[in-house]
Amino acid sequence: MSTTGITAPAGFRSSALAAGIKPSGKPDMALVINDGPQYVAAGVFTQNKVCASPVKLTRRHIADGQLSAVLYNSGNANACNGQQGDADALELVTSLAAQLDLSPEDIGACSTGLIGDLLPLECMRPALSELVEGLGDHGEESAAAILTTDLVSKQVIVQSDGWCLGGMGKGVGMMAPSLATMLVCLTTDAVITAEMAQKALSAASQSTFNTLDIDGATSTNDTVLLLSSGASGVEPTQDELDAAVLEACSSLMKQMQSDAEGVTKRVSITVRGTGSHEQALAAARTIGRDNLVKCAMFGSDPNWGRVLAAVGMAPAEMDPEHISVDFNGQAVCRDSMGTPEARQVDLSGADIAVEVDLGTGGPGEATVYTTDLSHSYVEINSAYSS
Amino acid sequence: MSTTGITAPAGFRSSALAAGIKPSGKPDMALVINDGPQYVAAGVFTQNKVCASPVKLTRRHIADGQLSAVLYNSGNANACNGQQGDADALELVTSLAAQLDLSPEDIGACSTGLIGDLLPLECMRPALSELVEGLGDHGEESAAAILTTDLVSKQVIVQSDGWCLGGMGKGVGMMAPSLATMLVCLTTDAVITAEMAQKALSAASQSTFNTLDIDGATSTNDTVLLLSSGASGVEPTQDELDAAVLEACSSLMKQMQSDAEGVTKRVSITVRGTGSHEQALAAARTIGRDNLVKCAMFGSDPNWGRVLAAVGMAPAEMDPEHISVDFNGQAVCRDSMGTPEARQVDLSGADIAVEVDLGTGGPGEATVYTTDLSHSYVEINSAYSS
Repeated sequence: MSTTGITAPAGFRSSALAAGIKPSGKPDMALVINDGPQYVAAGVFTQNKVCASPVKLTRRHIADGQLSAVLYNSGNANACNGQQGDADALELVTSLAAQLDLSPEDIGACSTGLIGDLLPLECMRPALSELVEGLGDHGEESAAAILTTDLVSKQVIVQSDGWCLGGMGKGVGMMAPSLATMLVCLTTDAVITAEMAQKALSAASQSTFNTLDIDGATSTNDTVLLLSSGASGVEPTQDELDAAVLEACSSLMKQMQSDAEGVTKRVSITVRGTGSHEQALAAARTIGRDNLVKCAMFGSDPNWGRVLAAVGMAPAEMDPEHISVDFNGQAVCRDSMGTPEARQVDLSGADIAVEVDLGTGGPGEATVYTTDLSHSYVEINSAYSS
Repeated sequence: MSTTGITAPAGFRSSALAAGIKPSGKPDMALVINDGPQYVAAGVFTQNKVCASPVKLTRRHIADGQLSAVLYNSGNANACNGQQGDADALELVTSLAAQLDLSPEDIGACSTGLIGDLLPLECMRPALSELVEGLGDHGEESAAAILTTDLVSKQVIVQSDGWCLGGMGKGVGMMAPSLATMLVCLTTDAVITAEMAQKALSAASQSTFNTLDIDGATSTNDTVLLLSSGASGVEPTQDELDAAVLEACSSLMKQMQSDAEGVTKRVSITVRGTGSHEQALAAARTIGRDNLVKCAMFGSDPNWGRVLAAVGMAPAEMDPEHISVDFNGQAVCRDSMGTPEARQVDLSGADIAVEVDLGTGGPGEATVYTTDLSHSYVEINSAYSS
């Protein structure tokens, strides 16, 4: 069995190449094929009302719970290109279907890159046959071909009892990713139904990708897919599937957090002591999106006052006079006041854990994963399209 | 008549000094006195659930629609200091009241600076008598004494028919300021009631300070006050008062925008073509808070795709296929697609106007004022408390 990500499970092949979409000449197209015997597929997509042509196409094609192949490209998001964008995505998929002896409805598409430029079909059309000819054990190369501003490729393998789950991902968030759209492809050789796949993927996305919030922005292209070939012949239970999908998503999410644009700190924000999980999540997100908190983290500055100022605006039940904050396990705020040692806490390491208790005694608890706001973030994002 | 801000209207004196709160030795305390014959006062305060001790005190003392004096300090927010913070604010106001032959309830207090350190009363107590002794035409000095990371002081005078309105301000936002709390003091010698003052101030704040959103963060200390001495003997109509207060607030808001932390671009974001003013405001705020949009502005990059990606997540009615965007009056996006000249638009100037039509034909329209996200913003805010 292969040791790479998406081609580790039996029944999957992939290929990748540099078609010339990226001016850098780096790999920018990938193809993932499910050779069956099952072609089960489930997906989770961006919640953005402005969504890319490939998202619209894949939502349609996955509606029957089946996909046999997914075409990936980086360097161009094919978003905000109107009907031409829709037509271009469909043309590529239709051409690919003919070469693979499939129906276009059997194929999904995922794009990531600059918004608003038409796909360079002149270089993408001839690349299709090369992708088909190159199909094999190339999970590694495919994971590299979907990257944009990512510095490292992200892959995962979860071995289970007689079946396995592989995956690749790129980007830095789900409902709140950077311009670096989050794309994830998970593959498994387990024998499962589309309903099982969707249930496992939706649940895992909620507690992993949806808690990763790098800059509060949500891409037009986010797409997380789970494909199953059933080639292992093993039928896991829903719980076993859920556990494997959660483990894979959690790993990819942590890899994305570590590689987020301009990151110098990995920050986890846990909120407790409020009315509900939803309130805790909203409060953690409010803190994680606060630029002043994020700048303080960049400066290794234990400025707990900014945490209180941020959370005070969150839609969550709290006792404003009895909020507690810990940084890396050390008490910096009790009863909404600083502790004597608060300014001396050492935040110079790469990982910072922020724990906030909103003081109501309520059962709500949630954790959000974010990063600091660094010079590099500004640098990367002020010079992207030009 | 004086030409400075808050002491321009008849019936007002002020003073300022360096008490030693700021390590830099710059001015950090100011006193504003209303000599009457009226002592009308109205206020607008932060909506943050975590609010500073002086905010709680001033809310109580202004409840009867009257204030005779306001004590300002910079360099320390007296926020998140618990009951000791409340007691410290009250002690200063009580001591000041005795020296001015007033009741403590006649005096308001406003603080701005670092959250979570107790006020250095040892240097502030002796400063009170000096402030009282120094009272005179010192609006200029007072405006300087309330600054924190502001680079320039902000003042305004609006001359009306037989009466005038003066003001000073600091900070960079209202419901969404930076750590640089927004403090504003407006003074007028018009003969008005507390109800008139509150009505004018609330309306003007909504359309000025509340549309200034530098970084989405909301301070614990925001306080906007309007004091009236009635010393001119002239009774304006509500409309006349509204107009003068709006003009003053608008001027101070623009001054704050220009001086926002790390600003290199002044960005206005107007949204039209959605269901209501509230939806348009929410959509404009979503765009204005988007770090990717703000980084693009810093880079003078006409990356309209980020505007669409941002607005697609806004809680506003839109037609995702028919959104228009203009930068500085030039069409960069029509029907949610880029125009041929989109990437050539010149955004190198200091002012950038973003206009978005959400394509529903609805009547909603609103404008939000923000800035770019620059290296300086990160620099200023990663090294604040340390």
